[in-house]
Amino acid sequence: MQRTLILNCNNKIGENVMVCGWVSVRRDHGKIVFLDVYDRSAIVQVVVTGELAGDLHPQDVVCITGNVAKRPENLVNLNLETGSVELQASKIEILSKAEELPFDMGGKELDLQLPTLLDFRSLTLRHPKVKAIFKVQEVTIDAFREAMKKKDFTEFQAPVIIPQTAEGGADVFEVKYFNHKAFLSQSPQFYKQIMVGVFERVFTVNKTLRAEPSVTTRHLTEVTTLDAEFGFIENWLDVMEMADYVIKYIFERVGRECGETLKMFGVTIPTVPEKIPMIKLRDAQEVIFKRTGRDNRKEPDLEPEDEREICRWSKEEKGSELIFVTHYPVKKRPFYTFEDPEDPGYTLSFDLIGRGTEWLTGGQRINNLETLERNAKEWGVDLKKSELYLQAFKYGMPPEGGFSFGSERIVMHVLGLTNVREASLFPRDMERVDVRLSTLK
Amino acid sequence: MQRTLILNCNNKIGENVMVCGWVSVRRDHGKIVFLDVYDRSAIVQVVVTGELAGDLHPQDVVCITGNVAKRPENLVNLNLETGSVELQASKIEILSKAEELPFDMGGKELDLQLPTLLDFRSLTLRHPKVKAIFKVQEVTIDAFREAMKKKDFTEFQAPVIIPQTAEGGADVFEVKYFNHKAFLSQSPQFYKQIMVGVFERVFTVNKTLRAEPSVTTRHLTEVTTLDAEFGFIENWLDVMEMADYVIKYIFERVGRECGETLKMFGVTIPTVPEKIPMIKLRDAQEVIFKRTGRDNRKEPDLEPEDEREICRWSKEEKGSELIFVTHYPVKKRPFYTFEDPEDPGYTLSFDLIGRGTEWLTGGQRINNLETLERNAKEWGVDLKKSELYLQAFKYGMPPEGGFSFGSERIVMHVLGLTNVREASLFPRDMERVDVRLSTLK
Repeated sequence: MQRTLILNCNNKIGENVMVCGWVSVRRDHGKIVFLDVYDRSAIVQVVVTGELAGDLHPQDVVCITGNVAKRPENLVNLNLETGSVELQASKIEILSKAEELPFDMGGKELDLQLPTLLDFRSLTLRHPKVKAIFKVQEVTIDAFREAMKKKDFTEFQAPVIIPQTAEGGADVFEVKYFNHKAFLSQSPQFYKQIMVGVFERVFTVNKTLRAEPSVTTRHLTEVTTLDAEFGFIENWLDVMEMADYVIKYIFERVGRECGETLKMFGVTIPTVPEKIPMIKLRDAQEVIFKRTGRDNRKEPDLEPEDEREICRWSKEEKGSELIFVTHYPVKKRPFYTFEDPEDPGYTLSFDLIGRGTEWLTGGQRINNLETLERNAKEWGVDLKKSELYLQAFKYGMPPEGGFSFGSERIVMHVLGLTNVREASLFPRDMERVDVRLSTLK
Repeated sequence: MQRTLILNCNNKIGENVMVCGWVSVRRDHGKIVFLDVYDRSAIVQVVVTGELAGDLHPQDVVCITGNVAKRPENLVNLNLETGSVELQASKIEILSKAEELPFDMGGKELDLQLPTLLDFRSLTLRHPKVKAIFKVQEVTIDAFREAMKKKDFTEFQAPVIIPQTAEGGADVFEVKYFNHKAFLSQSPQFYKQIMVGVFERVFTVNKTLRAEPSVTTRHLTEVTTLDAEFGFIENWLDVMEMADYVIKYIFERVGRECGETLKMFGVTIPTVPEKIPMIKLRDAQEVIFKRTGRDNRKEPDLEPEDEREICRWSKEEKGSELIFVTHYPVKKRPFYTFEDPEDPGYTLSFDLIGRGTEWLTGGQRINNLETLERNAKEWGVDLKKSELYLQAFKYGMPPEGGFSFGSERIVMHVLGLTNVREASLFPRDMERVDVRLSTLK
């Protein structure tokens, strides 16, 4: 008999079908056993005799043959897509027997400490509320690609192994590359700029790797990063406008396709006006000083508490849960960042801040070879092995800019997760690469 | 004045417009200069006075204001999308000046040796015929994703850094991971199998890394790999059928969207019948023996010359440029490959061979924990750090299978490139990571 997807049982009342999936819950009621069985489409209640049910338990993989019956009016479960039917089993085939679970997976919440959640990742990922996080990640990344394509951007593949660290940071992973040293890419920045010379508008989705020596709730060593870059901008506001467009495009699709998940997490898509507001860093610091008395007006960046305060202000005063903070000081940004000719010492760059932390970063880049080389020298960035990067500017590069953001951060902030590890299928940090590193010799 | 995309000049005859792009060719005819200028949409001929043209040369980035004029009937260029118009320039603004090019980029072919092609990658990628290769790669990857989504597959992100080599090979890159040793993923195999337990049907696009100690025309150290895996298969033929579907889906979109490129390379999409034919490895060897007298009937795999011969046979006898070769011996496949119960010693696995080489590999996997662990031991594969992998089978895994292929190989074979490096934007091998490693100390 051919398999019927569980969701299709709704259209097969009175018919004999075979569904295949995992047992998620077993409820014994005297001689009758109720099983919740799910596949990729939905979950359904199965009614079985005790004899047929045997010792079936959660995560057993089964194919169940039976009759699809309409439930009596008073037993319809409105919380279930298949809540008006049930399957009356006549035959059960076990495809794969699961061991006894180490904890209960049947509840709406999976109430585990983070280490346990990750130690049993292949199991905990199967919990509906955990699994749903990665549907949001899928939609986020797909929406990014779709948004960029609609604006004529070409997708390209940036490399992971690079000859030299792009931004001169120390937190880079080193690879033994035959008889040489190579590094893992922290960002496709150089490559996306090169590709502006080729396709004019490009985007790329990559794993980026950073040897973060800190174990915070916000940092991973491996991140799925979304990057865009484009040429022939009139000015840096074009870049900000494109970022505004992309973020809203993602919100729209997540809102439309992941409504159930948002409800499950008790959250809503951030409220943003027609145009996300912007404020210069200095003005933000002034606002914070006036509101809180905290004087960080000389600082080159926002502290975490400042980020939270400016978000509060933005929500209250501008009706926006997101805000662009712009004009970071030249020395606080990478060497390739464009300086504002009308505001020397400050860059045409921005961070998008929302719900208390940074979501995205971007800006206009230097497209002039001499300025770029001069800055690199000043910043102490060695471009000896970055011939290809310099080549792109040697042979004609239009005014350009772009932006970058991590998919995990977006998912974390949209769903209100407290730890970015929850937004990564297989999170890597100082202490864990699937297994806890402390357990290894 | 707002920029007009070059392709839109076709609809602006008689109007004054500004186009922005790169100069690709300059032709001096006495007092008149003809420039070919291109942007992301198209290329157009620009007529300029010598004075206005100044020393403009290829790769200069310009914004040109002028009048769109209809070309006289006899000067229409049918090879150009904008061949019925030309732009009569009145003003030229130079956005970025290019250095003198090290070689001519104006011809239809870019006739360079591979090392030069790669030493000047940021420039050579701008040549129309080089650039076109990466539009084919983009469409290939996008078609893969689209095909999988239509079949209810969920996209997921597999990690790059792994605790342990998945298949026990020696050609793995090692990473200094804080105070530990970690490795770069050669394949998302373990993770996609884990994810079958979560979403049932999954796919993933990743950079995979392999310390290939050979410098052949077919090997790269970094590849963009396309992977799919799905559960509840009835048998291994479901996996082959899915691979058949995906490859044809890619062909269909590349054929439809990259027709001009196929013409440029003088190639056609491979001819395949309704169903791509299949043959057991042993039968293929028998066929080869009969046709050529070459007796490799005892070999566990096809030699390159065998691959070419079986392709010839498939084309002649089956009308198919692609063929599935199946039932490789158990010992020649990874430890997780499913053995054919009806043909012991041989696996339910396949390679898709086309145009003389391997395109894709796949098969059914072992979904039983005990068999898996026993095989791992026999194969000498250490699963000590692969707890998460084993967990997936401990807690219920349906019969499943999948396949994997490199996007560069597909593009190479479709376009008839002679070296896989041409199908990688920034190819990495033993000798090069952007720069030639031999030039480094």
